[in-house]
Amino acid sequence: MLIVMDKKAKQAEIDTVVAAIKQKGYTARPIPGGERVSIGILNNKGHVDGGPFLSLPGVKDAIPVTRPYKLVSREFKPEDTIIKIDDISIGKGSLTIIAGPCAIESELQALTIAEHVRSSGAQLFRGGAFKPRTSPYSFQGLGEEGLKILSKVREKTGMPVVTEVMDYETFDLVEEYTDVIQIGTRNMQNFSLLRRAGRASKPVLLKRGMAATIDEWLMAAEYILEVGNSQVILCERGVRTFAHHSRNTLDLSAVPVVLKESHLPIIIDPSHAAGRRDQVIPLSRASVAVGAHGLMVEVHHAPEEALSDGAQSLYPDQFKKMCRQVRWIYDDLNRHNSLG
Amino acid sequence: MLIVMDKKAKQAEIDTVVAAIKQKGYTARPIPGGERVSIGILNNKGHVDGGPFLSLPGVKDAIPVTRPYKLVSREFKPEDTIIKIDDISIGKGSLTIIAGPCAIESELQALTIAEHVRSSGAQLFRGGAFKPRTSPYSFQGLGEEGLKILSKVREKTGMPVVTEVMDYETFDLVEEYTDVIQIGTRNMQNFSLLRRAGRASKPVLLKRGMAATIDEWLMAAEYILEVGNSQVILCERGVRTFAHHSRNTLDLSAVPVVLKESHLPIIIDPSHAAGRRDQVIPLSRASVAVGAHGLMVEVHHAPEEALSDGAQSLYPDQFKKMCRQVRWIYDDLNRHNSLG
Amino acid sequence: MLIVMDKKAKQAEIDTVVAAIKQKGYTARPIPGGERVSIGILNNKGHVDGGPFLSLPGVKDAIPVTRPYKLVSREFKPEDTIIKIDDISIGKGSLTIIAGPCAIESELQALTIAEHVRSSGAQLFRGGAFKPRTSPYSFQGLGEEGLKILSKVREKTGMPVVTEVMDYETFDLVEEYTDVIQIGTRNMQNFSLLRRAGRASKPVLLKRGMAATIDEWLMAAEYILEVGNSQVILCERGVRTFAHHSRNTLDLSAVPVVLKESHLPIIIDPSHAAGRRDQVIPLSRASVAVGAHGLMVEVHHAPEEALSDGAQSLYPDQFKKMCRQVRWIYDDLNRHNSLG
Amino acid sequence: MLIVMDKKAKQAEIDTVVAAIKQKGYTARPIPGGERVSIGILNNKGHVDGGPFLSLPGVKDAIPVTRPYKLVSREFKPEDTIIKIDDISIGKGSLTIIAGPCAIESELQALTIAEHVRSSGAQLFRGGAFKPRTSPYSFQGLGEEGLKILSKVREKTGMPVVTEVMDYETFDLVEEYTDVIQIGTRNMQNFSLLRRAGRASKPVLLKRGMAATIDEWLMAAEYILEVGNSQVILCERGVRTFAHHSRNTLDLSAVPVVLKESHLPIIIDPSHAAGRRDQVIPLSRASVAVGAHGLMVEVHHAPEEALSDGAQSLYPDQFKKMCRQVRWIYDDLNRHNSLG
Repeated sequence: MLIVMDKKAKQAEIDTVVAAIKQKGYTARPIPGGERVSIGILNNKGHVDGGPFLSLPGVKDAIPVTRPYKLVSREFKPEDTIIKIDDISIGKGSLTIIAGPCAIESELQALTIAEHVRSSGAQLFRGGAFKPRTSPYSFQGLGEEGLKILSKVREKTGMPVVTEVMDYETFDLVEEYTDVIQIGTRNMQNFSLLRRAGRASKPVLLKRGMAATIDEWLMAAEYILEVGNSQVILCERGVRTFAHHSRNTLDLSAVPVVLKESHLPIIIDPSHAAGRRDQVIPLSRASVAVGAHGLMVEVHHAPEEALSDGAQSLYPDQFKKMCRQVRWIYDDLNRHNSLG
Repeated sequence: MLIVMDKKAKQAEIDTVVAAIKQKGYTARPIPGGERVSIGILNNKGHVDGGPFLSLPGVKDAIPVTRPYKLVSREFKPEDTIIKIDDISIGKGSLTIIAGPCAIESELQALTIAEHVRSSGAQLFRGGAFKPRTSPYSFQGLGEEGLKILSKVREKTGMPVVTEVMDYETFDLVEEYTDVIQIGTRNMQNFSLLRRAGRASKPVLLKRGMAATIDEWLMAAEYILEVGNSQVILCERGVRTFAHHSRNTLDLSAVPVVLKESHLPIIIDPSHAAGRRDQVIPLSRASVAVGAHGLMVEVHHAPEEALSDGAQSLYPDQFKKMCRQVRWIYDDLNRHNSLG
Repeated sequence: MLIVMDKKAKQAEIDTVVAAIKQKGYTARPIPGGERVSIGILNNKGHVDGGPFLSLPGVKDAIPVTRPYKLVSREFKPEDTIIKIDDISIGKGSLTIIAGPCAIESELQALTIAEHVRSSGAQLFRGGAFKPRTSPYSFQGLGEEGLKILSKVREKTGMPVVTEVMDYETFDLVEEYTDVIQIGTRNMQNFSLLRRAGRASKPVLLKRGMAATIDEWLMAAEYILEVGNSQVILCERGVRTFAHHSRNTLDLSAVPVVLKESHLPIIIDPSHAAGRRDQVIPLSRASVAVGAHGLMVEVHHAPEEALSDGAQSLYPDQFKKMCRQVRWIYDDLNRHNSLG
Repeated sequence: MLIVMDKKAKQAEIDTVVAAIKQKGYTARPIPGGERVSIGILNNKGHVDGGPFLSLPGVKDAIPVTRPYKLVSREFKPEDTIIKIDDISIGKGSLTIIAGPCAIESELQALTIAEHVRSSGAQLFRGGAFKPRTSPYSFQGLGEEGLKILSKVREKTGMPVVTEVMDYETFDLVEEYTDVIQIGTRNMQNFSLLRRAGRASKPVLLKRGMAATIDEWLMAAEYILEVGNSQVILCERGVRTFAHHSRNTLDLSAVPVVLKESHLPIIIDPSHAAGRRDQVIPLSRASVAVGAHGLMVEVHHAPEEALSDGAQSLYPDQFKKMCRQVRWIYDDLNRHNSLG
């Protein structure tokens, strides 16, 4: 933290800031400049809140200097975290594809889609049993029945499954049935849910909030790691901007930043970013090319009949094409050691 | 919903869309245009999902025409909802001021601030017992002890209290102690929490999500009303934009829009919007002038020692000045029937 | 500028940064911290570009500390700039209202509207002769004929006029006819135009770019002052965000920030912010309440026939009502010395 | 255009809207719905402005249905535009790389960098002679001397050159020296400049405005085509969002949208999007994978001494690596006909 003083700040005001810093147990280091004085705060153990200093007379600004997260940072743990689910690895050195419908609608639907995506190259199956919906009048998912169908899919296809948990109350239930617990974009800062996820025995797939900075996203992951679960997969899914040709704006620059700042794996969900099927394949290619460790994609064999998000679901044939294309890119880059 | 066809769409493609609309039980009305055909969807009872139609060949766009919410809309209930808490009214015809510290830190702190804000003109006291914090290492609130202090404040000052509920698990506890249950910006789309709030016996203050559209915000309120609680106060607190001179960008145009679309009261939180004390008084004046029904403002007698958000808390003297100024504006406009 | 080193930066890397700073003629002041070293850059005369330092090994970040503008800053000129046009003052101590149609369409239209707005309390008349339009197929303004009509309006009503200049080529012409030269949001960083405006003999009304930070806006004004014209009026007109219930999101927090940082007057254009008539009166009240020095509002006596932006133009009766309401607010606040 | 009426709109109000539509020479087609009436506007020749209708009583909304641009649209010209510069093609079927320093600083600097980028695989050389700078105190480019250096580069290396034109006054000069005329992000809606570019004899590279929608961007291109120059290359360079880990947020979903809507070539500038060197290579890979026709990248042999934007410039070795990686991706996708 750097405290920047007004140009006309008096010595007494500077002294007050220095005293306030010391009183909190930190070290204050005034830096007299040509135009104004700044004061560095040193020897703080954790995050320093600039607020109290901004309140003091003569203070113009309080500028944070260090990153606020710890356990998720590469400075804390330099080697990449690899998450193992059965014989599948998620993280550096692999390209993992998760696919399936937005929502589980029936056993027949789930199994039909699962067979399609497995044969095209997906390693995990996704499908919502509990669905967060903007409207209370929209289809909310099959609940436990959906979870049971997911179990059947795993049994019959051998694919581990990913499904979203929406609240504390149903967490035990979801944890029992699924292989990877998804926390959705609207819950990225549902801190009670994050803490519960920290006690889970399964990996957590944490989506970025639709207006979250990378720091906030990593801090949300920090909540999970801090409680004790270090199996966290980050998932970028687009952020909200003024642009409306896609539902959200996919922020692929998040990938190199996360790869640099954190040891956690990062995958991309191009389906929710785009919101329209015709952008999904190009964005999938871009996601792999930028260096993401995997993709989570919506696929439906009859999207025009889907109970939710049909417009963004790929047809099975399109998914097959997508898998082929992203493998070319990944294999090429990986062969030449050109990723992350 | 209006389905817009490609310029070159064939008649067979148009027929398929018409058939798909009818199959869902709606009425299809093709509108042949100079350049292209559009197809209106009529006689739908609730929200129509454009997705399935976007999937059909020859379809270029699916444009929603009607609003997705119902119970919160003025079309459904034209007269304004007025919320009563003891002898205080929130809604059209009143200017209600809620004030207090960001977090309850001690009985002494809470009572000191409560006396200050009551004597300056606040009608309700606010203070967090459970605090949502970006970092797991920041002060998380006093929990139940904080709630007990809030009870003491009410007992000693006669002011009803407002405090935030963060999760389902502590909802009963918060509901027992508080007069108004606040749902924070990060939980605006925590649908389990919204449903629980729908069963609450107390009014709910629902903050706008930091990247929520007004439609999404009203839909979140619809969740609460749909379950059975129609005592909802909306609270605008700034949205996230590229601008960084304030923590968030206060969106005051939300007020006339909400006043037109909904019968629910709307208040403004200028403190979280600004994030810096020196913007709070001007923004409070603007909030009252734009037509909001009230303000929720952070006040601290010693902000430089506050455990959270000190930088945005007004000093008691500043709060007094603010109350005076906003009363002038409100009284003037109200006297001339120039609001809402 | 503060250069933040990696935690693991070696002494040689720190030395290199120090040498690079000195080579540019600045003073380097290393600040050893608990976790990492930062290096302050002192004695720079103007803006320091962080780029070259970010390129050096071991450097994590380069954080600007001081403001980049000078002539527009209150640190440079503490007293408020008041702009005089005939006997009208724009700036601290006055509330100035500029009104008129989006575009000049005919002499009859201009004079009709001018009479309306003058009698309701507008001091200056606005109207576009050269119109920047998103589409080349939209009405582009009457050009010089429009300027001549503006002259007639001034002659007949005594009101000074404001009109937009779109380019260097027509600058002389516009300057000859108008009293205040408006530079539009799309030209805020048209630096050739800004430099030409710096040589103008008339005051310049500089609109904020639709995605400009306040720093960038003040830097654009700095271009004008730097060349020699210190008569600049800033005009906030909404910024582009994800929100779509208004055309732009009016950023009223810009007012206290500009009042603090700069000595220049600042006014608000609620019409272009809202884009819809029904938000204009509430936003005008808010603009005056927040402390702006004036308003620029679109008025049309027959908006449904307007050639541009009819949807946001007030009817004359609405404008009259607006003037009354904002005067109450301004007079109240001004009487008690409660502004800026 | 679809006019949506209030639920409670009276027949007389509907009739008024119908009459207003007819008066403008369009056809009105009322669409009675279950809840409300909508009215389609047909047989309009160009863009319909919704404003006048929004002004009528009983009207709730005016929703544009068709795209506003024409000459740039694929509906108008289905086949892809390929731009030829000497023996280089820009557009479908090629991957074109433009590289060079942000600003031309000296002949030695330009030639040194040009040799580097040519040998690594760049086909065109870029370098600014006139530089738009946020601050009037920053280096503004060498002007005509810079243009002369660009000529030397072309002469000695055989590479065509790209440079930015900032204003009408220097347009002739820039047009004389350069092979491709760049219009920068701040000038995307400088309509006088666009019109001048429409009369140019050389191809124009049009950058997307930092807060421009795709429709606005294509409309800006429409200005150029409408005057007579159909040689336009679109360049996405990131948009302004709340996210600050990169200077702008690169919006790669713009590529599939532009490829679908327009016949014009589209390239990506990852350097200005990122603002930091370490994101440039990953974003370049993503840009090619998403289907862009080319890249424009900043390269400097000594970025720590660059007079502008050094922090985002690649070292020559990094550029070489980048070229290799994007070629693998492009060749793979192209070999399998998997682009566009």
